[in-house]
Amino acid sequence: MITTLKPRRTARAQHRGDTRRALIWCGTEILTERGFGATGIEEVLSRVGVPKGSFYHYFPSKQAFGEAVIQNYVEYYARKMDRIFDNTARSPLEQIAEFVNDARRGMTRYGFRRGCLVGNLGQEMASLNEPYREQLEAVLKSWEARVTDCLEHAISVGQLHQDSDAASLSRFFWIGWEGAVLRAKLMRSDEPLAHFADVFFDRVLRRV
Amino acid sequence: MITTLKPRRTARAQHRGDTRRALIWCGTEILTERGFGATGIEEVLSRVGVPKGSFYHYFPSKQAFGEAVIQNYVEYYARKMDRIFDNTARSPLEQIAEFVNDARRGMTRYGFRRGCLVGNLGQEMASLNEPYREQLEAVLKSWEARVTDCLEHAISVGQLHQDSDAASLSRFFWIGWEGAVLRAKLMRSDEPLAHFADVFFDRVLRRV
Repeated sequence: MITTLKPRRTARAQHRGDTRRALIWCGTEILTERGFGATGIEEVLSRVGVPKGSFYHYFPSKQAFGEAVIQNYVEYYARKMDRIFDNTARSPLEQIAEFVNDARRGMTRYGFRRGCLVGNLGQEMASLNEPYREQLEAVLKSWEARVTDCLEHAISVGQLHQDSDAASLSRFFWIGWEGAVLRAKLMRSDEPLAHFADVFFDRVLRRV
Repeated sequence: MITTLKPRRTARAQHRGDTRRALIWCGTEILTERGFGATGIEEVLSRVGVPKGSFYHYFPSKQAFGEAVIQNYVEYYARKMDRIFDNTARSPLEQIAEFVNDARRGMTRYGFRRGCLVGNLGQEMASLNEPYREQLEAVLKSWEARVTDCLEHAISVGQLHQDSDAASLSRFFWIGWEGAVLRAKLMRSDEPLAHFADVFFDRVLRRV
């Protein structure tokens, strides 16, 4: 299809695609630091160097931009989870420990300014915006399913007691983990992540 | 002192005080629903019926307004905690269960739009604003101390094992609890609060 376009239009379309991607990544950065709030979208445009009036050239609405940013974060995070939970060199419980350590390294690298985009938007948008709310809840459900699979694997290989309820434990983990990420931002320290994971491993999980 | 003022000035001062209090309570409402974000302070002024230009008549800065709102929430919450944790008709663990149930009732009453002001502001402000960050962390520390006292009491009366570390358990509770409040807002359900509390009581605490 592209070959039927005139060269100038092709270059333009590519430039438009690059700018769109730059806007999405910059939005992802800002939303892992805080909500869109007062200056979010304007700051995205200014960082990428797109004039304010051109926003609708790239996205039909702010809502569509927000959804694209969430989708981008979800895909980024799915790749990260693939790396961690598909790594058969580690046992299931080692995979969860690596997930925690990866988050500790990631938050430390960005000086604890960046937390979880889903948590940030959840806090900001949950009371306001029904489509966001459903999209964010679906994302958390998919992350929960991932850890449930990992815990079921841990049960099947005998790392956890046979009577463990993987879905209930995973749900508890994700409910509390978003709180730990919030607290790590507030304290500018990975101690809340470490403390939450320590107690989760020592008390909540029943290891064999 | 007030009697030395002329009547007109007294009425004015009182009106100014009333308006200031109305602004603080309205800010508290909005901040338990979401962050200040794009429209927060303007919405406070509009709800209370104060013209935008008059804001600095009541507060020297937006920062000072934010701090007054946090302080108001802290005092409101301290009274709530007094009621729950000073009620000697309940055992220490029953007091914690009542804290959880009070939160479930409170969030349900407001249709899960209102969460925790400290969590909302923490998510929004932590990356931006040093004085807020320290104030919010101090508030969480004070709530942690309250639950630590309660858990120490539970140990001393034999509800929890003697080797329980009250401070560590309270810290874990508060790290995860803010996540549970966030998730309850997102799901519009008290299930995350209930699930977090159930696992905390059944697995994390070692009851005698």
